[in-house]
Amino acid sequence: MSSKKIVLKFGGSVLYKENMTLEVDKINAIISIINTLHDEGNEITIVVGGGVLARVLIHASDELGHVNTFKDMLAVESTRIHALLVIASLKDKAYKLVPRSFEEVGKALSSDKIVVTGGFQPGQSTNAVAALIAEYWGADILINLTNVDKVFDKDPRIYPDAKPLDTMTTDEFMKIITKQDEEPGKYKLFDRVGCEIVRRSNIKLIITNGSDPKNIIKAVKGEPVGTMIHG
Amino acid sequence: MSSKKIVLKFGGSVLYKENMTLEVDKINAIISIINTLHDEGNEITIVVGGGVLARVLIHASDELGHVNTFKDMLAVESTRIHALLVIASLKDKAYKLVPRSFEEVGKALSSDKIVVTGGFQPGQSTNAVAALIAEYWGADILINLTNVDKVFDKDPRIYPDAKPLDTMTTDEFMKIITKQDEEPGKYKLFDRVGCEIVRRSNIKLIITNGSDPKNIIKAVKGEPVGTMIHG
Amino acid sequence: MSSKKIVLKFGGSVLYKENMTLEVDKINAIISIINTLHDEGNEITIVVGGGVLARVLIHASDELGHVNTFKDMLAVESTRIHALLVIASLKDKAYKLVPRSFEEVGKALSSDKIVVTGGFQPGQSTNAVAALIAEYWGADILINLTNVDKVFDKDPRIYPDAKPLDTMTTDEFMKIITKQDEEPGKYKLFDRVGCEIVRRSNIKLIITNGSDPKNIIKAVKGEPVGTMIHG
Amino acid sequence: MSSKKIVLKFGGSVLYKENMTLEVDKINAIISIINTLHDEGNEITIVVGGGVLARVLIHASDELGHVNTFKDMLAVESTRIHALLVIASLKDKAYKLVPRSFEEVGKALSSDKIVVTGGFQPGQSTNAVAALIAEYWGADILINLTNVDKVFDKDPRIYPDAKPLDTMTTDEFMKIITKQDEEPGKYKLFDRVGCEIVRRSNIKLIITNGSDPKNIIKAVKGEPVGTMIHG
Amino acid sequence: MSSKKIVLKFGGSVLYKENMTLEVDKINAIISIINTLHDEGNEITIVVGGGVLARVLIHASDELGHVNTFKDMLAVESTRIHALLVIASLKDKAYKLVPRSFEEVGKALSSDKIVVTGGFQPGQSTNAVAALIAEYWGADILINLTNVDKVFDKDPRIYPDAKPLDTMTTDEFMKIITKQDEEPGKYKLFDRVGCEIVRRSNIKLIITNGSDPKNIIKAVKGEPVGTMIHG
Amino acid sequence: MSSKKIVLKFGGSVLYKENMTLEVDKINAIISIINTLHDEGNEITIVVGGGVLARVLIHASDELGHVNTFKDMLAVESTRIHALLVIASLKDKAYKLVPRSFEEVGKALSSDKIVVTGGFQPGQSTNAVAALIAEYWGADILINLTNVDKVFDKDPRIYPDAKPLDTMTTDEFMKIITKQDEEPGKYKLFDRVGCEIVRRSNIKLIITNGSDPKNIIKAVKGEPVGTMIHG
Repeated sequence: MSSKKIVLKFGGSVLYKENMTLEVDKINAIISIINTLHDEGNEITIVVGGGVLARVLIHASDELGHVNTFKDMLAVESTRIHALLVIASLKDKAYKLVPRSFEEVGKALSSDKIVVTGGFQPGQSTNAVAALIAEYWGADILINLTNVDKVFDKDPRIYPDAKPLDTMTTDEFMKIITKQDEEPGKYKLFDRVGCEIVRRSNIKLIITNGSDPKNIIKAVKGEPVGTMIHG
Repeated sequence: MSSKKIVLKFGGSVLYKENMTLEVDKINAIISIINTLHDEGNEITIVVGGGVLARVLIHASDELGHVNTFKDMLAVESTRIHALLVIASLKDKAYKLVPRSFEEVGKALSSDKIVVTGGFQPGQSTNAVAALIAEYWGADILINLTNVDKVFDKDPRIYPDAKPLDTMTTDEFMKIITKQDEEPGKYKLFDRVGCEIVRRSNIKLIITNGSDPKNIIKAVKGEPVGTMIHG
Repeated sequence: MSSKKIVLKFGGSVLYKENMTLEVDKINAIISIINTLHDEGNEITIVVGGGVLARVLIHASDELGHVNTFKDMLAVESTRIHALLVIASLKDKAYKLVPRSFEEVGKALSSDKIVVTGGFQPGQSTNAVAALIAEYWGADILINLTNVDKVFDKDPRIYPDAKPLDTMTTDEFMKIITKQDEEPGKYKLFDRVGCEIVRRSNIKLIITNGSDPKNIIKAVKGEPVGTMIHG
Repeated sequence: MSSKKIVLKFGGSVLYKENMTLEVDKINAIISIINTLHDEGNEITIVVGGGVLARVLIHASDELGHVNTFKDMLAVESTRIHALLVIASLKDKAYKLVPRSFEEVGKALSSDKIVVTGGFQPGQSTNAVAALIAEYWGADILINLTNVDKVFDKDPRIYPDAKPLDTMTTDEFMKIITKQDEEPGKYKLFDRVGCEIVRRSNIKLIITNGSDPKNIIKAVKGEPVGTMIHG
Repeated sequence: MSSKKIVLKFGGSVLYKENMTLEVDKINAIISIINTLHDEGNEITIVVGGGVLARVLIHASDELGHVNTFKDMLAVESTRIHALLVIASLKDKAYKLVPRSFEEVGKALSSDKIVVTGGFQPGQSTNAVAALIAEYWGADILINLTNVDKVFDKDPRIYPDAKPLDTMTTDEFMKIITKQDEEPGKYKLFDRVGCEIVRRSNIKLIITNGSDPKNIIKAVKGEPVGTMIHG
Repeated sequence: MSSKKIVLKFGGSVLYKENMTLEVDKINAIISIINTLHDEGNEITIVVGGGVLARVLIHASDELGHVNTFKDMLAVESTRIHALLVIASLKDKAYKLVPRSFEEVGKALSSDKIVVTGGFQPGQSTNAVAALIAEYWGADILINLTNVDKVFDKDPRIYPDAKPLDTMTTDEFMKIITKQDEEPGKYKLFDRVGCEIVRRSNIKLIITNGSDPKNIIKAVKGEPVGTMIHG
């Protein structure tokens, strides 16, 4: 396996158990895989989502009657806290600071460290951030760890005949994302802005289940795993 | 007229003639109106788009074979240059620096100056920025200067019976924006992310023609002008 | 009551119920008092502690086996999140950004807004930060909201004859703080570095119970409340 | 006297006695005058030079065999230390941070505080900085405190018939500055870059003796003092 | 050829055809040479000027009646846009951010990437910036690509007997630069501040024609090309 | 000797002779040893104190009647100036910028350069900074150069039978530090906050005499030198 540039995105579904208790073993397993991939010469950038912490803070902000932008800002701060946890676990392999803007990602990517970032701004998801970084950095692959094995052709919660897909075009994926957008309050696989970037630059995106961290290795090696979105 | 918090967005269609020549008289007229509104006790934040300069730079980047993120970054730089031109014209009324991130907007809004900003990050339009600032700052009104008098219920370039509307719900507006999104290469009135923020926070958005700068005053005074998007 | 420069410090014992649920009513009551004090012409700077959120994150970091500095950093991030919540509640009265260093506090204090900050650096408590800001800014009073009515002359959990004091010298206070320092794991009223700053600059420090937010007004008006530490 | 925008520049010849001992009384007298001018409604920006401290540090750097840029950087740091001293003396009237770049000056000038700055970059004198700020900010007057009463038409150390002048054109001043440039190691009144900015923007520059701080008031009031350089 | 530390400066005369159309082929040729030099072990820092874009923006600012500092600021922004274009072309070999101050250059030079910068501040040319970086970084050579083959001993547009020179002392060069300074509106080879830095640190400066990018290689290899300015 | 991560702290007692004259030869000897250690594969971070310069500036600030925070800030600026001197001497081996906060240290440590820093904030000593960096970075050893050969079990200026110790526990060291704290105006070996960090993370701290720079090598090699503080 020749060395690759990998963007790895994961969030709450990987980090937390049901409440604010961390999935320590799973996180350690992911860190261990990242260390191995790095030792094998791969370059890795990690984007971390907000998960339960974001929801707790958004709820607090809601109770205090704040305008929505602050909820986005709190969600962003949550992602940065998770990024800091990952940095601490990666020790000297990580760029030691969580970039707070796209410009700071530029600086961080100019080092030879594993860059770990959360979100940047209100109104922008960590999926969009991950897609942008993959595009900007020229990543070979963008791996999105989520809580499903594959993307379905229809919402499996509604259609019993929904089928999990191994591959999907970005146009097909955009349709699913757009439909999902119209159903607020449900878990979102990805967002339109991120998908648009994946589409415009033909980024190789693999969506796979983070409950088995070895899926990361499969995705990097090109073995079948999850759903690959392609141009 | 009691004092208001106004976010004013305008871009290339207001700033430029056909090529890279500025619409000096029109810009001066807009500056003059902003000065008057400010003297009357209104608080104003301005978001400026990229226009012809963005297109020229994106074209250059394209010729040089760059990845798309850089094109977004160049477009962002264009908006900042326009913001700097507006700051220079507003003299001591303006916050003298172009904020480069949402955090810097926070600092700028903590002064009592007119804040003038462009875009912030790749993958985010200045319309989304304007909507976010309106939400964050608690603006009374978001005025979007464009090159049409009103929003039509259908694309007037296709449907001869398309009708210009005085008001429109955010849901209706979102449908038009989404349809527009699917037709690449055409001039875009607004974008989905911005529209989503307008919708979630019920921001009062007025889209009106920037070719007559007095439309700004009408919008602020609550006189009928352009199309008002409401919750 | 002539206008004053007030530094107000509060943390977890004021913000949270037993778990991660916020004390929404109490927070709103404090915000309301801050608004009133501000409307009456007082200048206010707020320093917020880390509370339950800090403990949750430190626990997570501990489980992941991180070095101690990261635990301090996570505690600092917690204080910043609380500061952001306070800023959102204070709306346009607040400087809209959480300063991340002493230098950024300097910038923020140069506006005419209420500055809200958390901690700055590993190895430095928010009490020390509050004392430093009071000194730097020339505050008339530093109010520390805590969960006790007064400081006792001895630890009341050990000595049944411990007496609550209305006033205390900084030397006496330093002795209590130093003793407290030697008993790890217990709730700390203040820290030595903060106390040293209070002493060297003879800052008027009042420690009072945050469970009744009206204590803030009493402290500002000079009415007897809590324990006043003096030079 | 109507209120004015004043840029005041002074450096080592005003700050220090022969060695590193500060001219405390003179500095206090200048601070007192600045406070008065500010209370009278004038807006003031201060630029401070490096003086003896710069020379001591440059000498140290020279002994250690450093490249010249570091000597410039150390000189810049010296000016910032002097600026910090002035800020501390001006208390809440001052913007509390020393701007480290022209962009940070822009932020500082957007507050309503007295901005105090030193130099910015290697290869740029504080006289050039003062001229640039005067131009950028639209100052009514740029006052340069030095150790001579007036500018002479020729070098008085060489020509016994040299005459002190009340006024001088920028062209005449540029000639004197240029000649001075060619004699390294001598005290410099001003520098070519600063003079070029004064000339291109027709800034009203008064060079006067800082040994009598009341000269500042005379210059602001338009009374004859020192040498006025005009377009 | 042993590896060298090279500062390469080029601007509008290399980047643009007559109008705002880029010299795409020439730029690509220069990028290709930089890549080769980098692959051969040389360390390279690039400073880019403002060219046509600067002139267009200055003209716009002039039409809008702005003070001169803003024109300088717009020129600086132009240089940063060109630097961004070069960074995009150099891909992962480049430090991904355009430094906005001398301090940020320090950070960038601490990576092992090719640093690409424009100007920093009003009142300072990119030639001065290039000379400062060469001095600060300890460059072996400063190559200035321009639109003439060599520097002449007199202005060839006036004196038919002007001779192109292979070498020139910094004192001689300073005289030519100073004379040039006095003729506003003409193309400038270099500026006095930059020349002064070259002189004080005895930097090896080669001025050569950018129309043939291979001149860069000749300069690096020490083959005769352009005019070499020496101490 | 396998490669190590070394934090080296030294300050005024190493840098200066009695007045503001630098100990040029001693500094050069230390730089030479740092270069050698670096060439041998060790990673080094340097923290520099304020020394005579700090005292001179604090005295000036005192004479001008400033509040204490500014004295701390001036002391911090002094440490940064010393750090800049060390950076200049280390040339390309050093990260070229003095970090101004813990976050900037994080960025700097992500390069492969020798990081040289001074202090960060008022109310925090450079010893505390050195201990924090050692903990954060996972240093193998923290070497503190001072003006005594070893730490004594009692103050040798008072007790003639005081004995120099080769090793000492952090608890014993904390007692000495705390006693020292109570005697203002005397030279301080270390401070409580720094000692607390050394204790909580069991950092290997060696205090040795900087008058013989070879003591650095002994400490790194594990040869007996100075006093080793251990958990």
